[in-house]
Amino acid sequence: MIQKSVLIVFVCLFSLGIKAQNGDSIIIKKIADDVLINGTAYENLHYLCKKIGPRLSGSLQAQKAVEATAKMLKEAGLDTVYLQACMVPHWVRGEKEKGYVQVGNMPKYDLHLCALGNSEGTGKKGITAGVVEVKSIKELDELGDAVIKGKIVFFNFAMNPAFIQTFKAYSTSGVARRVGPSKAAAYGAVGVMVRSLASNFDDYPHTGATQYNDSFPKIPAVAISTNDAEWLSKQLKLKMPLTASFTNTSTMLADVISYNVVGEITGSEFPREIITVGGHLDSWDLAEGAQDDGAGVTQSIEVLRVLKATGTGPKRTIRAVMFMNEENGGRGGEKYLELAEKNKEKHLFALESDAGGFTPRGFSLEMNGVKVIKIQQWKNLFYPYGVYDFSVGYSGADVGPLKKVGAALAGLVPDGQRYFDIHHAATDVFENVSKRELNLGAINMAALIYLVDNYGLN
Amino acid sequence: MIQKSVLIVFVCLFSLGIKAQNGDSIIIKKIADDVLINGTAYENLHYLCKKIGPRLSGSLQAQKAVEATAKMLKEAGLDTVYLQACMVPHWVRGEKEKGYVQVGNMPKYDLHLCALGNSEGTGKKGITAGVVEVKSIKELDELGDAVIKGKIVFFNFAMNPAFIQTFKAYSTSGVARRVGPSKAAAYGAVGVMVRSLASNFDDYPHTGATQYNDSFPKIPAVAISTNDAEWLSKQLKLKMPLTASFTNTSTMLADVISYNVVGEITGSEFPREIITVGGHLDSWDLAEGAQDDGAGVTQSIEVLRVLKATGTGPKRTIRAVMFMNEENGGRGGEKYLELAEKNKEKHLFALESDAGGFTPRGFSLEMNGVKVIKIQQWKNLFYPYGVYDFSVGYSGADVGPLKKVGAALAGLVPDGQRYFDIHHAATDVFENVSKRELNLGAINMAALIYLVDNYGLN
Repeated sequence: MIQKSVLIVFVCLFSLGIKAQNGDSIIIKKIADDVLINGTAYENLHYLCKKIGPRLSGSLQAQKAVEATAKMLKEAGLDTVYLQACMVPHWVRGEKEKGYVQVGNMPKYDLHLCALGNSEGTGKKGITAGVVEVKSIKELDELGDAVIKGKIVFFNFAMNPAFIQTFKAYSTSGVARRVGPSKAAAYGAVGVMVRSLASNFDDYPHTGATQYNDSFPKIPAVAISTNDAEWLSKQLKLKMPLTASFTNTSTMLADVISYNVVGEITGSEFPREIITVGGHLDSWDLAEGAQDDGAGVTQSIEVLRVLKATGTGPKRTIRAVMFMNEENGGRGGEKYLELAEKNKEKHLFALESDAGGFTPRGFSLEMNGVKVIKIQQWKNLFYPYGVYDFSVGYSGADVGPLKKVGAALAGLVPDGQRYFDIHHAATDVFENVSKRELNLGAINMAALIYLVDNYGLN
Repeated sequence: MIQKSVLIVFVCLFSLGIKAQNGDSIIIKKIADDVLINGTAYENLHYLCKKIGPRLSGSLQAQKAVEATAKMLKEAGLDTVYLQACMVPHWVRGEKEKGYVQVGNMPKYDLHLCALGNSEGTGKKGITAGVVEVKSIKELDELGDAVIKGKIVFFNFAMNPAFIQTFKAYSTSGVARRVGPSKAAAYGAVGVMVRSLASNFDDYPHTGATQYNDSFPKIPAVAISTNDAEWLSKQLKLKMPLTASFTNTSTMLADVISYNVVGEITGSEFPREIITVGGHLDSWDLAEGAQDDGAGVTQSIEVLRVLKATGTGPKRTIRAVMFMNEENGGRGGEKYLELAEKNKEKHLFALESDAGGFTPRGFSLEMNGVKVIKIQQWKNLFYPYGVYDFSVGYSGADVGPLKKVGAALAGLVPDGQRYFDIHHAATDVFENVSKRELNLGAINMAALIYLVDNYGLN
């Protein structure tokens, strides 16, 4: 008889599960319809991109974006909207960079380049030197002082086109941008050129942060376009006399005050349990920051708007957070954790959208196995909305710190095939965002937030 | 003992299955690497879009496209490349269409419009009449002669944004374009304006075929942009005197000769069993036909190129077919069937790519259940390349006729969120195609063709 009762319990649980899923699918459909018909993410993104524009930490536009998104959150129907002050780095690019290559007696070849974020400047006179190309850090190490000293090091690390996951290619080749300048400085280089981290061939340089190692001189570092990188590599193979020259006047100023922007709906049953959904408000100075990360910001606002508009919960307190300074410091994410600890907040779950507003394919789950399994059981609810992959992986730079207070973390995983054509370049503009793709991301984010809010994660 | 041997047989089969899948995944990885590193689809697409341009059936450019793709197939390493002659409709748009709306005494409002494909012209004088808006065929039927006679009928059938599958919204609202003109003519209308079948709001009219019913007068029919449709609908609500006027000089000429282009690799074991992969070579005259369907054409060429380049089979005969005249007649697909029947060919499988070269999500399978299950067993092999959905459904207009000779059919299912922003409009240009997305489609197509070739479908 024991076996029979176990069976009955199992059947009951299974039936309850089916019933819950049916009810949930109706609620998620309601969310989807409202986002697709009444959603405001695309219009908000248009405002951020076209009325404000680039929003580098410490800039006037970043401040305008703080004010604008606070207003958007209020317009989304939230009664609780506030700022979290934090000090952020204030790097400025200075004048438009210039650079060229001189091969033998041929006419100068002008480069499409831009300073890497956090780079020191060359001074007005610029720097001119011979060029050493390397294709790996190992190669740099092998050449050492003897070859590198007094030279400009050209890190020609192409993104591997054979990686289906473009983020993998980005992070692998990205070592050049992140640590190349200090590595080269250690061997006496006077400057660095990195091949843009781009998956396509064009004339746009892609910026992005470099991190200087304080043990070595901070030498100026620029990115050159992929077309220029291909050209330069060919010229170097000719073994003719070749020098490169570039000028940038970028510099790091003293930290300034800025803000995370937070919108909140208080939970009806468990107001002290907090669920966070966010993206980052700052962008690079060369781009409108449409996909990176205006998309994540406006999707996060949309999640709260649609939950409010459709009267979907919440039982727990749900916050949309526009994090400041993800691109060149991560101070907003750190501040959010600091306040969470100070205020003894209980963080259940945090979801980040910082991989672009492209058509969504999944969520990357950074949490313990029991929670992963719980979320994976909801998988079928997402299938009609294009999301099918719930793998264990990295969540995001801004929610990452919340691991310290025990939050389960996740990141939206959109399709990444187009991202690195435009990432950190002047081509990351509103026109390269699809309204329907952006909204589809927001729908899946709202669905996941709804399910975690409704069922918890234990 | 019987049970035990059954178990052993099962385990052996299972192990063989795993082994086969491992071997297959290595071959598919080889295919993927070659497409991503050496693929020519994007460059071929650039040629079709930028060197040839719009390729409407019967046009000089369509003929150039026939010659160009035959050349591409030869360059892909195929020894057997040939043409299949077929007669195609020869519709010409004539002069750039003009049209406006006059509300009361207000200044004329110029419309962004274009004739529907196959539409008859208004003559140089154009037509001017009052406008009756309808939002369903039922509404048209209810209004009848009394209201419709002598009027221009404005079919304002918006694509439903709440349908996640944009093709569903397209086919639902598409009834207006397909049969609206003849339906309106039956009630005495003098002309038709249809709201463009577009998922976004902009000023581009989207063309596409209408099919006249010979029982009724062939009245001129144009598409207006979605922005204009919204505007016109608002004006009509004001109940002020309103007339619309438009001029188009389009007309249907006598059929002309054109061609399907076929490239073939002869099978090593079963040369008489044919596997087809194709897209359509013709496009609308307003567009470069990049996504529709330069993508499918260049992907199909790529499939044969990569199979040849990587030495992957084939056991069966594999053909890439560039079908002519999908857009306004379907004559190429019919001719392909006709020759298959005449030559008593044995068609095992045919795969079509005519839903754009966007990031792929699946294959739509039009075949019997046993074959569906066989293909679904290969599902895991596609997962790393973004394809996870193997549902039963529609294959495509050009391979469709092959059902008659017993072929199993399938269609590539790319993500459809961006397609109807540009479909059949001047915005369907090369710049709106992502190289990586296009290649990812070709990889999955090649993988499916390889598996069907290697294992058959029985």
